[in-house]
Amino acid sequence: MERWNELQRWMETIPPVDVEVEEKARKHVDNLTKPLGALGQLEEIVVRLAGMTGEVVPSIRQKATVVMCGDHGVTEEGVSAYPREVTGMMIHNFCRGKAAVNVLSKQFGSRVWVVDVGSRLEELPQGVIPCKIRAGTDNMAQGPAMTRKEAVEALWAGVDMACRMKEEGVQLLAVGEMGIGNTTAGTALTAALTEEPVAGLVGPGTGLDPEALERKRQVIERSLAVNQPDPKDPLDALAKVGGLEIAAMAGVALGASALRLPVVIDGWISTVAAWTAVRMAPRVQPYLIASHLSTEPGHRVLLDRLRLNPLIRADMRLGEGSGAVLAFPLLDGAVAAAEGMATFAELGL
Amino acid sequence: MERWNELQRWMETIPPVDVEVEEKARKHVDNLTKPLGALGQLEEIVVRLAGMTGEVVPSIRQKATVVMCGDHGVTEEGVSAYPREVTGMMIHNFCRGKAAVNVLSKQFGSRVWVVDVGSRLEELPQGVIPCKIRAGTDNMAQGPAMTRKEAVEALWAGVDMACRMKEEGVQLLAVGEMGIGNTTAGTALTAALTEEPVAGLVGPGTGLDPEALERKRQVIERSLAVNQPDPKDPLDALAKVGGLEIAAMAGVALGASALRLPVVIDGWISTVAAWTAVRMAPRVQPYLIASHLSTEPGHRVLLDRLRLNPLIRADMRLGEGSGAVLAFPLLDGAVAAAEGMATFAELGL
Repeated sequence: MERWNELQRWMETIPPVDVEVEEKARKHVDNLTKPLGALGQLEEIVVRLAGMTGEVVPSIRQKATVVMCGDHGVTEEGVSAYPREVTGMMIHNFCRGKAAVNVLSKQFGSRVWVVDVGSRLEELPQGVIPCKIRAGTDNMAQGPAMTRKEAVEALWAGVDMACRMKEEGVQLLAVGEMGIGNTTAGTALTAALTEEPVAGLVGPGTGLDPEALERKRQVIERSLAVNQPDPKDPLDALAKVGGLEIAAMAGVALGASALRLPVVIDGWISTVAAWTAVRMAPRVQPYLIASHLSTEPGHRVLLDRLRLNPLIRADMRLGEGSGAVLAFPLLDGAVAAAEGMATFAELGL
Repeated sequence: MERWNELQRWMETIPPVDVEVEEKARKHVDNLTKPLGALGQLEEIVVRLAGMTGEVVPSIRQKATVVMCGDHGVTEEGVSAYPREVTGMMIHNFCRGKAAVNVLSKQFGSRVWVVDVGSRLEELPQGVIPCKIRAGTDNMAQGPAMTRKEAVEALWAGVDMACRMKEEGVQLLAVGEMGIGNTTAGTALTAALTEEPVAGLVGPGTGLDPEALERKRQVIERSLAVNQPDPKDPLDALAKVGGLEIAAMAGVALGASALRLPVVIDGWISTVAAWTAVRMAPRVQPYLIASHLSTEPGHRVLLDRLRLNPLIRADMRLGEGSGAVLAFPLLDGAVAAAEGMATFAELGL
């Protein structure tokens, strides 16, 4: 596992956030014309961005969302309200600029990178970045979703993408996904790594009825029983009950944090990926920004463990990075306030 | 009370929302390339905006925030962390474009209208719309804050402002305020109209310590005891324990809803004003959109009564309309998604 050792060396390069710059940002924010702390989480965001980037008033103008796409063998078990072909259809939709993540990104002036790390599409539409590790995972209810080696390659695909985005001038990135069946894998991975009961984590995903939800729960339980993922070994769990796009998103978080790029997480699946990255490298945690609280029950469980406070509560459950993009203007607003507001001294108070 | 009768006739002109257009908007949203309901509150917003405006995909490009400004005689009782002179200073700050509401509005491409309905400033800086009813209220701990006639005039100032905004092409408006002491008045008004105990509503406002908070609670209790506002008569309560800017904001809600303009409410004070307007004219309610949940405890109480779901949870407590403006891009995003996303039929599913 040369590539895994290499990735572990990469993780060691993730720098701690700069607490001195954070302190300077805090002082600046405290002097603005508003009661102390009255901008709440917006102030926290500014201070945290300062610590991540090392700039007192950070620039986050260049933003982009990477949408990692992959298919899941476990769809054979009937765990999703949509057929698995929808993954490929939505990849086409992303490339036409007609999915929610595209429309919101256009609205807010950010870019979308669509990456195929594991779809079953044989021919990719123009605009997709091809990084296929394999054409979908195996059915985890019958054995491991993928090999440890494949999981490492998918992680590296994410790290590489973060590096490419940094090179192209991206200053803050969001992670999103497309993969029919991935709330099943995400729930299994979370249950494996947190040792929380599946029943408290599983949700209807794209829209299961109660009967199908119960089947989904059973499939997840069976997948865990069949694979026996090691709760102390995030890579083991990721390979056995994760997914290619989930691994790639975890890789983006590992990549971005080493490059001091703030990472905005989206809903349930991208949070599972971020959590997996934090389990591999705890120094990732301070580079994460929560965007919204999804209706999937496991989302809150992981956000609490990550001690992250989502800014938006809109009952969204779409994925793609759509909720993360929706938070972009709030982050812009926070930075604009820090840049543009007068201080009380200027007002003569 | 000729002017009050006239206002009651105005209230009768508030149209119900158009449920047929809502239904069309719902169908449109349901066909977009996402699981049913997966955009959560964003979908609700689009449907509700359709019902308010009568357009299936409404245009809300032209947005503005009206900041109603007034002073409070009750500041004599030491109920605020800031001296009452800060109201006037902040009016100057708004006119220089350096307050949070200005910076956020500039960021999101919306306008700010600053209106003096009751400050103690004798000379107004350029840019303020002069509508002074009187120079601050009287101390409500010793008697009524203002006369019933003055409250009616302040309500009309708000109605007139909504009409002017509509004439200037505003398609959606937010209500904000500035008035040192107004969380004290707002709490008293809420307690008067809801008959809820003051202790469950009062909060630290701009930042009181526990001792000062207890004094504030006592001042509110005393104001209610002295004035005996009638819980069945919102105008009586507004005059006795409200404020000039609170009345004007209620007037904006009455004005806007009659003109089918969606009204975005901000934090605690603007919600008190909206609630007062709804108590006067229940048809105002469907024209209200909640932006954020403030940390002031009374805010949630009133949002629950109004059955409104705030989109943002950022622990803000600044006022000015700052939280409402922060929600503008989320509303834009909701409308953009409804306009720009493909349908499943277009995808061949």
